[in-house]
Amino acid sequence: MRAELLAVGDELLFGDIVNGNAAWLGRQLADVGARLTMSTVVGDNVETIAAGIRAALGRADAVILTGGLGPTQDDLTREGIALAAGVAMRRDPFLEASLRRWFQALRRDAPGGTGRGTPEMNYRQADLPEGAEPLPNEVGTAPGIRLEIAGEGSGSGGVVYALPGVPNEMYAMFTGSVLPDLLRRAGEPAVVVHRVLRTAGIWESVVAQALAGEVERLAPVGNPMIAFLASGGQTRVRISARATDRAEAHRLIEPVEKAARDALGIALYGVDDDSLEGTVLRLLAERGETLAVAESMTGGLLAGRLTDVAGASAVLRGGVVSYATEAKRDVLGVDPEVLATSGAVSPETAAAMAAGVRDLLGASNGLAVTGVAGPDEQEGKPVGTLHIGMVGAFGTLTRSLRLPGDRRTNRIYAVVQALDALRRTLTVHTC
Amino acid sequence: MRAELLAVGDELLFGDIVNGNAAWLGRQLADVGARLTMSTVVGDNVETIAAGIRAALGRADAVILTGGLGPTQDDLTREGIALAAGVAMRRDPFLEASLRRWFQALRRDAPGGTGRGTPEMNYRQADLPEGAEPLPNEVGTAPGIRLEIAGEGSGSGGVVYALPGVPNEMYAMFTGSVLPDLLRRAGEPAVVVHRVLRTAGIWESVVAQALAGEVERLAPVGNPMIAFLASGGQTRVRISARATDRAEAHRLIEPVEKAARDALGIALYGVDDDSLEGTVLRLLAERGETLAVAESMTGGLLAGRLTDVAGASAVLRGGVVSYATEAKRDVLGVDPEVLATSGAVSPETAAAMAAGVRDLLGASNGLAVTGVAGPDEQEGKPVGTLHIGMVGAFGTLTRSLRLPGDRRTNRIYAVVQALDALRRTLTVHTC
Repeated sequence: MRAELLAVGDELLFGDIVNGNAAWLGRQLADVGARLTMSTVVGDNVETIAAGIRAALGRADAVILTGGLGPTQDDLTREGIALAAGVAMRRDPFLEASLRRWFQALRRDAPGGTGRGTPEMNYRQADLPEGAEPLPNEVGTAPGIRLEIAGEGSGSGGVVYALPGVPNEMYAMFTGSVLPDLLRRAGEPAVVVHRVLRTAGIWESVVAQALAGEVERLAPVGNPMIAFLASGGQTRVRISARATDRAEAHRLIEPVEKAARDALGIALYGVDDDSLEGTVLRLLAERGETLAVAESMTGGLLAGRLTDVAGASAVLRGGVVSYATEAKRDVLGVDPEVLATSGAVSPETAAAMAAGVRDLLGASNGLAVTGVAGPDEQEGKPVGTLHIGMVGAFGTLTRSLRLPGDRRTNRIYAVVQALDALRRTLTVHTC
Repeated sequence: MRAELLAVGDELLFGDIVNGNAAWLGRQLADVGARLTMSTVVGDNVETIAAGIRAALGRADAVILTGGLGPTQDDLTREGIALAAGVAMRRDPFLEASLRRWFQALRRDAPGGTGRGTPEMNYRQADLPEGAEPLPNEVGTAPGIRLEIAGEGSGSGGVVYALPGVPNEMYAMFTGSVLPDLLRRAGEPAVVVHRVLRTAGIWESVVAQALAGEVERLAPVGNPMIAFLASGGQTRVRISARATDRAEAHRLIEPVEKAARDALGIALYGVDDDSLEGTVLRLLAERGETLAVAESMTGGLLAGRLTDVAGASAVLRGGVVSYATEAKRDVLGVDPEVLATSGAVSPETAAAMAAGVRDLLGASNGLAVTGVAGPDEQEGKPVGTLHIGMVGAFGTLTRSLRLPGDRRTNRIYAVVQALDALRRTLTVHTC
């Protein structure tokens, strides 16, 4: 089952937004073993859309469009499909009635209206190419489209799906209407199962080297396949297996996963969708302990990442962003002597910040970060200097390293290194 | 001058990463008035790459490839270009010598090596299609490629450029080698000039409505063109004009910009690359004042956004993430009576948090955010409840609103609303 993607929109082509929909759909198709060979973006132009559809059907069995299903005159996907199929457009009476009811409800609940176009323009969303079937939109108003197009020559026909460009609407419609249809058409679908091992605190090349040999011995023929994905200061190891069913795929993955876990050791903090911050909070919650964080160069990003986790409040008391040096002294109670001799960027100050914020917020553990994000050095210390302080039942620990990047990268990496330092400390100091 | 983009890489096609390069290049091409009609992604396959090139040259005069120029056996862009052009590959002796020197230097400075492939594999980066010219890579090792391909039929030839996939390397090579070449080939290039007006605190539809009429009267024929770009809780109004030179483009933009500014009023906070947080810090710096921030539902993101601005330390003393209710009392000094009667999520508490953090950090101004991010309601208050407190020379002010989204969206929008509330307050209370 060969598939292609075709995204429609001037805002995509001219770079106002990045094509996140294509990445999401690409992953979905890879997961079900569909052969995705090409992904294209065209602008808001009927002829170009139609040409893109025809070209894709010349190469593949299914083409999935996103975007261009809105109510404005720039939304031309419906017309593009009709042109590609050589059919006329018709207004579907059921869709029209459904839209009419929706607009009546909208006027009733929000009398000012949305200010977006006229009601009449919105009824373009009830138009379909002749012979097409609408796909229900559970999240928004624009119905999707499915249309079989007969080929002229051999292999040039296929099925066309059109989904909204709005991500949440597209996810729901793809999952609910398109994916089951694709699987059904593919007959005996192969399943692809992924297992993602998540590591932190070590470089991608070190991960790859740790897994060389033993793991590659177990997976020589590309099934399972191992991919290394480095982003945001962490490296994920994805093990992917294809099989006729999920149980068989899991059986293929198991020995490779075991060998990888043995090789990665404590660098591995979780699997699949686990997050580093979630892991830290979980480790503390299991002990009935709480946490407070103090930060300067990361400026709130460390607390921000921990509070991203719904339910963080069970563990995280709060934090202090001690941006000005005086704030470290006045708010966190860092000894002015320490600040004077070692400076605001030092292991001693990191440890004092951790103890101070722990006491101030009444938590069981304190985690502190101080360093030099850049672009300028500070106190004669170079850009990328990082000191992490940790105080808890395990005692007082600091970790010092040198980050390699620019200001933005250093702030992100510092948060990851701080979270991972606390994770490793809690993991080896079980009480 | 019609152009197309062709990005190469399995990781793009299967959604491991999003195609940010295409968005960047799309903007660059739009800026110089090149006609970009289609943007495609293919996987690491020589035949597919070649087919993509040939198809693109059948439609356009120039195709710009990104990716697939690395040293591994999956890097097949060079071979794909050769196949599309019907030429052989040759090893360029100058490139080879240059690479040899680079690797000698690498071994000298980093004796462990990078662990990435063998030196012999890396010399693939010295191979070129016959007749191609290398483009210098100022940032990395892989040279780019330029090759003229003669067409078989009319309109099916053109120029092929290949750039590295690594963004920083691609930006530099495009700007240094490709863009000047494209402009030269286009003869009398049209220039496109953009002016972006940045607003906050009002919905996109309200912005569009405010600009209807007067502005559309001034720009009826699509030049200048007006686009509304809503993201992250803010709306940008982009005015774009095409002309034979920049001065003429600016003359076209000027009356439209003036009408837009008049219509937007105080909602407009900056232009082009100004940021909301930068604007707030600038307004305070101009008065010689400082700021401290207190937050709970935004968990550090407000301080994090302010500290994103290099030089924020001149104004921002720091902040407190008072995540637990007790932290509002113990750290910020909010009156327990206020917490008991109004709750942690209330205008009174927001004002008290702002005053408390200002005193604690010794700043001239305090800004506080308290609300309900979700997914659960809190103290009987619904998800999206938001109270902003501000204390300064302007007195004590609060602003309360209801955010429309989920947890992640509410946290981001709350930061934007808080920054904008302070901006508007400072703007109308000039001392």
